[in-house]
Formats: sequence, C-alpha cells, structure tokens
Amino acid sequence: MTETTTLTVEALAERVAAIFRRTGLNDVQAGALARVIVAGERDACKSHGVYRIEGALRTVKAGKVKPDAIPELSADDGSAIVKVDARGGFANPAFELGVPALAERARRLGLAALVINDCTHFSALWPEVEALTEQGLAALVMCPSYATVAPTGGNKPLLGTNPFAFGWPRKGTSPYVFDFATSVAARGEIELHRRAGKKLPEGWAIDADGNPTTDPEAALAGAMLPFGGHKGSAIGTMIELLAGIMIGDLTSPEVLDYLGTTTLAPFHGELILAFSPEAFAKGRPGDPFARAETLFQTIVGQGARLPSQRRFAARAKSEREGIVLTATETEQLDRLLEKGLDAVS
Amino acid sequence: MTETTTLTVEALAERVAAIFRRTGLNDVQAGALARVIVAGERDACKSHGVYRIEGALRTVKAGKVKPDAIPELSADDGSAIVKVDARGGFANPAFELGVPALAERARRLGLAALVINDCTHFSALWPEVEALTEQGLAALVMCPSYATVAPTGGNKPLLGTNPFAFGWPRKGTSPYVFDFATSVAARGEIELHRRAGKKLPEGWAIDADGNPTTDPEAALAGAMLPFGGHKGSAIGTMIELLAGIMIGDLTSPEVLDYLGTTTLAPFHGELILAFSPEAFAKGRPGDPFARAETLFQTIVGQGARLPSQRRFAARAKSEREGIVLTATETEQLDRLLEKGLDAVS
Repeated sequence: MTETTTLTVEALAERVAAIFRRTGLNDVQAGALARVIVAGERDACKSHGVYRIEGALRTVKAGKVKPDAIPELSADDGSAIVKVDARGGFANPAFELGVPALAERARRLGLAALVINDCTHFSALWPEVEALTEQGLAALVMCPSYATVAPTGGNKPLLGTNPFAFGWPRKGTSPYVFDFATSVAARGEIELHRRAGKKLPEGWAIDADGNPTTDPEAALAGAMLPFGGHKGSAIGTMIELLAGIMIGDLTSPEVLDYLGTTTLAPFHGELILAFSPEAFAKGRPGDPFARAETLFQTIVGQGARLPSQRRFAARAKSEREGIVLTATETEQLDRLLEKGLDAVS
Repeated sequence: MTETTTLTVEALAERVAAIFRRTGLNDVQAGALARVIVAGERDACKSHGVYRIEGALRTVKAGKVKPDAIPELSADDGSAIVKVDARGGFANPAFELGVPALAERARRLGLAALVINDCTHFSALWPEVEALTEQGLAALVMCPSYATVAPTGGNKPLLGTNPFAFGWPRKGTSPYVFDFATSVAARGEIELHRRAGKKLPEGWAIDADGNPTTDPEAALAGAMLPFGGHKGSAIGTMIELLAGIMIGDLTSPEVLDYLGTTTLAPFHGELILAFSPEAFAKGRPGDPFARAETLFQTIVGQGARLPSQRRFAARAKSEREGIVLTATETEQLDRLLEKGLDAVS
C-alpha cells in the first residue's frame, strides 16, 4: 500500500512558497509561483504541478532568472496597451501585477493588451486565462518558447511549442478554456516515449535530416512538427511575430541561443489580449453570455466535450477532499525545503 | 487551341462592377465587390475570382442581401472598438468604410478592433488583412460561416469552416499573410471529389451517423472535420464566440437556420483586430520589422515556404501581363452583364 499525504490547496501553496523563499525568491516571486504550481497540482495537471518546482529552481541556480525581481507596471498612457516589465523575474508575479490594470483598460476601451517583457515563463497559460474570465472578460494569451519545432516544409527547429490559450467567462460554472501547444505533441511526451522505449506516432517529428521519424532519439535530435500541418505552422509563426518580435522580446530561436539548453525555463515575453463582451455586444440583440451557453449546450449535446473539463472535475475534487501527494512527491518537497538549490543540478 | 482574353486589373474591375450595378447594386457595393473579386482573379485564387460573382448574385436574387445598402460608421466613442453597420449589405464596402478609422484608432491606442455587423460575406479574408498591412499594421481577422463542421468528438454540423487570417507588414515586399479555413478542407473540395467520383482523403469528414467516411456523398450528408483535431475545433469554437456571439451577430448554426442553404453567401458579422507594431515595440530594443525579416529568412533558408507566395507570384504576373480569362469565363461575364439576375437560378 502506497502512503499518501492529503493537503488543502492553501497548505500546499504555503509549503511550495516556503521552498521558493528558502532558495532566494522574494515574496512576490515565491507567492505567484506557488499559486500556479498548486493550481496545476489541484487540477491534476501533473506536468504543471509540483514536478515543475525543480525546473524553476534549476533556472534560478543557472542564474537565468532574477529571484528577487520586483515587476514594474508602466504608467497609464491612455492607450490600449498595459506593459509590465518583469525585470528578469518570473512571468507570474508580473502577470498578477498587470491584471487589475488590464481589466480596467479592457472595460474602459472594450479591448486591451497586457505585454509582459523580460520574464521567465514556465507555467501553463490557463491560470492567466482564468484570472481574466473571473473578471468577466474573454482572453487570448500566447507566448514563444524555445526553438524545437520545424516550420512545415522545413527541417530544423525554429518555432517553439508556442502555446495558444483562450477563455470565455461563464456565469455560475467553470469558464470555456483551451490552452494548447502549437506543436503536435509536447516535448515531454517525446521524452516519455524515449524512456519507455516506445515508437512515436506518425507525424509527430522529423529527424536531423528532415525525414519523418517515429524514433524518439532521432526526434529529439531533429525537430517536432506543428499541429495541423501548414496551418499550425502559420499560427506558431504568428505567435513568434506578435508575442516575440512585436513586443520587443526574444523569439524561440533567440531564447534557445540565450539559454543554450531546453532544460531551463525560457526567457522571453508574453502577450495577453482581453475583450469586454459587454462593450463589443453593446447595442446589439441578445445577451452574449446566454447565447454562448446555447452554443456550449449544443456542443455537449452531440457528445463532444468542452476543453478543460477533466481539469475542472479534478479541481472540484481537490477543493472538496484536498490534494493527494504520493510519498515520493512529499519526500521531494521535504528534500527541496531542506537542501534548497543544492537539491537541483 | 483555346481562345483567351487578356485584361488589365482595372478593366476587369470595371467589367465586374458593371455586372453588379446592372443587377441593382449601388456604387459602393458594386465597387467593393468588384475589387475583391478581381483581387482573387489577379492572384490566381480562382475560387475567389469571377467564379464568385454568381454566388453573390444568387444571394441578391434570394433577397438575403440588400444590394443598395449604405454602410454606416459609428461615431468615435474613444474606445478601441470601431463599429460599422453593413445594414444588410455586403461586408466589403463596410470594411472599406471602417479601415481609415480602424487604422487611426490602432495607431492612437496601439490596438483596436473593427466590428462589422449585419453583413453578407463571401470573399477571402486576405484582401482585408492586406488592406491593414499596407498601413503598416499587423492584423488578425476571423468570422463564422454556416454550420458544416462537427466539433471534435461530435457527430453533427455545428461550427462553420470559420476562416482565420493574419498579416504582418513587410517593407518593400509582399506582407506575411495566411488565411485558412479551420476545417480540414473547404466544402468546395468535397464537392469537387464528388463530381470527379473520387474518394476523400481520410480524416476530412464523417457521415450522418458520426462515423469517419471517405465517400463525398456521405460527407456532404454528414459533417466536415476541423483541422488539427481538438485544437482546430477549439479555434473554430473561439471564432463562433468572438466573431459571432461577442459582436452580437449570428453564429454558424444560426446563419444556416436563417439561410436554409449553404448555396447562398452567409449573413453574419466579422471581427478584425489591428495592432501597431511601433506602439507595442516602443521603448524595447530592436526594430520589429527588421527582426521579422530575420525570422522569415530563417524559414525560407531551411526550405520552408512563407504562406501566400504562390498568390503573390500570380499577382506580379497579372500586374505585368494582365489577367487572362478563358473563353468560358468571358462568355459568363458577357451573359451576366446581358441578363443580370435572370442569368442565375
């Protein structure tokens, strides 16, 4: 019988924050990181849960992120762009700082953007999307990553796995949220196939010569492929342009040059668009929130699923019954708290 | 030997506009429609060229579009949203009316949206994207269609082929532009397979029972599938939400209910986002336009293609040598000019 530990969301957040403070993160960095990591664990989204702590600490240890950065919000210039300079820290506290200004600007102007510059990003985008749907706003979020994906027709890593996330607020229930990589698969899935000695499905990757491969080793030496062929490749390129180049931050190949590895969290920027459905729908017939529910019911009514439902079910269970950690996970947390940066290579 | 006619872009535009005026369109409707149709023909994008005239006229004849509508631009309310009421006419003159205000607003605020309401849409989105890249702006354009695509996991038509288009301005050369359906294939491609008696590729469609099919008849009675599996399905749904529901206009199932057929051009709204790269990049290192060129060179340098290049090559040829019409196409134009709405069923 495996021993497990059950913790409340709050207790786990405090435990994770303590690890980050222990390793030199200031309160704003430690708190924001703990919140997104615990959100991942709470939602049974293990790849963004406590598993991520080590990667964040490796990035601190490598000197590629400033653990004591205080993000800075630019003065309101009356435009639709809210800018937060993460000042070399993690993206999460910069995002939290920017949200109230972004929400206010989106309500005032109907549409606004939050630009985060000079940040290290390692979390999923859905916590950010949900922070905006909680405010009754629709949100579109994107950022580059590091060059691991070949553009369609190409043969070398250039694009990142460039996540693309969207949310629509729903009253009295969890929002409509999707958050996906613009590659066919995440890099971690290829690594999992390698460790398990399994072949990859067709269409995931190419080898170093640009030929299709199902061998995970060859894929890791080659490049991943974009989802949906040339269409996904185009969306990945759009994300490099809007959320890298346009906001004056690094593109995926520049991130890889800067870090020299894909084992550290990427340093770049992020683009968040917020829409006020009330402002857009003003003067038009129908309530946009009620109409969206009709659309969702029709989707579910024909047996299709709304995205993120597995996550929301796990969340409800965690909030009701607590978050269950395995003995190994508890030991890892104890070890990280005891040894700090010495616990990571 | 087939007889052909060569016309300048301007001469063909005048000829097409004359057909539309002959069938009751006012000058703003006829001129805007002629411009997008001739742009399609000029770019060898035959599915959006003179072939489209009949569909537009069928929609006029069915009384589903107002041929004499004068689009109306809302007063500047200081927000980031520019609204144009197409007043039941075609989307194209409404778009043309909104562009100067959208460009001014995007320059002033960094980011702005153009909402077109109550319009009939039948053209590609790239002419609109290019109208904005010509102004030095990046643009993201989307709209619903009619319900012909099942959401992933579903078994009935619900989403439209919902086009998604993006552009980035380039100095001294054609812009970076993509414009694609969020379904695997266009409905017209399935129809072409049916006529040719060919099986469809796997993954394009499902039959009326929701089972995968390669039979074009079964596919037309069933539903098309989104590109890229659940990811494309999510993007298609996002387009229903943002460019249908949020802007207070019809969703793809509502369009189909309203028209009762997919043979007429759809009546709905459209969402256009414009970004000022200068405003976003302000205060950051590097020139965004020069950095984008580096990205494009790297894509091309590894043998991948930028989207729309075939179209731009055809455009250069048409501008140099004129647009070549087949004898059948010329006869069709003559017949449409002579008979007007009597020429269409």
